[in-house]
Amino acid sequence: MASVLPASNTSMRSDRNTYVGKSFVHVKNPYLDSMDEDVLYHLDLGTKTHNLPEMFGDVKFVCVGGSPNRMKAFALFMHKELRLMDNEEDIKDICAGTDRYCMYKIGPVLSISHGMGIPSISIMLHELIKLLYHARCSDVTIIRIGTSGGIGIAPGSVVITDEAVDSFFKPRFEQVILDNIVTRSTELDKELAEEIFNCSKEISNFPTLIGHTMCTYDFYEGQGRLDGALCSFSREKGLDYLKRAYNAGIRNIEMESTVFAAMCRLCGLKAAVVCVTLLNRLECDQINSPHDVLVEYQKRPQLLISKFIKQRLGLCDQTS
Amino acid sequence: MASVLPASNTSMRSDRNTYVGKSFVHVKNPYLDSMDEDVLYHLDLGTKTHNLPEMFGDVKFVCVGGSPNRMKAFALFMHKELRLMDNEEDIKDICAGTDRYCMYKIGPVLSISHGMGIPSISIMLHELIKLLYHARCSDVTIIRIGTSGGIGIAPGSVVITDEAVDSFFKPRFEQVILDNIVTRSTELDKELAEEIFNCSKEISNFPTLIGHTMCTYDFYEGQGRLDGALCSFSREKGLDYLKRAYNAGIRNIEMESTVFAAMCRLCGLKAAVVCVTLLNRLECDQINSPHDVLVEYQKRPQLLISKFIKQRLGLCDQTS
Repeated sequence: MASVLPASNTSMRSDRNTYVGKSFVHVKNPYLDSMDEDVLYHLDLGTKTHNLPEMFGDVKFVCVGGSPNRMKAFALFMHKELRLMDNEEDIKDICAGTDRYCMYKIGPVLSISHGMGIPSISIMLHELIKLLYHARCSDVTIIRIGTSGGIGIAPGSVVITDEAVDSFFKPRFEQVILDNIVTRSTELDKELAEEIFNCSKEISNFPTLIGHTMCTYDFYEGQGRLDGALCSFSREKGLDYLKRAYNAGIRNIEMESTVFAAMCRLCGLKAAVVCVTLLNRLECDQINSPHDVLVEYQKRPQLLISKFIKQRLGLCDQTS
Repeated sequence: MASVLPASNTSMRSDRNTYVGKSFVHVKNPYLDSMDEDVLYHLDLGTKTHNLPEMFGDVKFVCVGGSPNRMKAFALFMHKELRLMDNEEDIKDICAGTDRYCMYKIGPVLSISHGMGIPSISIMLHELIKLLYHARCSDVTIIRIGTSGGIGIAPGSVVITDEAVDSFFKPRFEQVILDNIVTRSTELDKELAEEIFNCSKEISNFPTLIGHTMCTYDFYEGQGRLDGALCSFSREKGLDYLKRAYNAGIRNIEMESTVFAAMCRLCGLKAAVVCVTLLNRLECDQINSPHDVLVEYQKRPQLLISKFIKQRLGLCDQTS
């Protein structure tokens, strides 16, 4: 069933466009440069309507997450943390002309929502990568800060992904191209994961660990939940699947990491996935912790990545 | 690679729970009734926190679409069309506590957003179907009113789906359950499609047709576009794929119809997919019609479905 196109194999080589030591974000599309105009439809931006190099040329960190409200909150948080001089009220949704995604820019940090699931984040990533390419951005680090279900770890733990795997515990992303299935690597940047993990050591409020992350196409049947509208397996089968996942090194489950890892890798973006776990799936299926507890959990990846960005920018202090 | 679980085969039978002639929305999950509480997490609703039968018991029509703004606009439009006595200002987002989806109720009509892609609509459908089940709703018709790319038809045409097919032109949805792949039927209600098509004959402003709809996991490589961040096939190969799709009876491409058809079918919801086409993919890849043209296109499925609902409710008049 799976056939690998030669073109895709080629794209997997580490052939980043480097120039005077800089690693530029690149596309793997020979047709793009010959286009008169590139409309980034789902971002409501374009090469003729916007000066993308001027708007985005200085971007060095891109943080993405599912929920628009959470990514706005992260932008406001980064604004405070980076102590930028401009007014908080000036932080506007750059994609305000569409309700598909939202986007905020805080100095060198871009904060973007991607909705839920592989197709939704994939549309955003295609257009984001083209945006960074058109803007001639270089040395960009991209981090997904999300929520997930934990396996065998305390709720509220933050998992930094060393390997994104699919429902069959394989480190691969199967991309349908026309009517072929092309298998892509989901390898993430190991040094970046270590660097973020080292930052976590200075935060004592919550546990952080490195582990495999499983990415599924479905929240209910695909993650072994017994509480969906459809459920055709037994409690024992579901638990057995989750235990096998744990034994394979998987510590959390979410719905975007494989395509995120695959696309960023192909386009010269150093990528990390940092997700908090909202529950322990070996114990329950439903997310029913009190609202304020869940809100606090969701701030944890933001706190960690803010620390990482400040450290990279040489802004780290003892107080935060 | 594909194995069919016996349980899923069973679920495919037409065994709707009927009682005194009514067809109730049902779930296919033996565990649900034994749960003390059911938290519909992504809708911010629950069986203990909300009186679902009181809130939703009279729902007869559910309309779903990707964009939250569009589904709010549809709710406001239906409010005007149904000439309900309550104030427009009282139309509030029932899911205001979350930004994953939005939901509005206008008399017997529910309008809900589902985001982009199969995983996103699947989470919403699981929780919507449980909501309708807990609310003891009966004889519910559900219609996806969306946008799509057309194949070989004029932009602005409205396609009523007779068959939802996957990237391989097959009328099936492959659901990963634990680590098995279960194939589900994507058959839609033929009578409902005909009924909606008959309504369209009274509207002269735009062409409406019945055809197959292809559902993909990806907007760029998966739909043969040459304008994504990644493209590994030639212009000729891409066009050949789209022409083969046309020859197989496919008239438009979108990203939700297969799982929508499969899940609604299993749970006793009569379902239809009605999407406007924003471009003709045999001619171009980019959506670059003027904003006001696209806005008008997106109103077309709303206009058609409003006519259908009014006809069902015996409210049709000559003026609309």
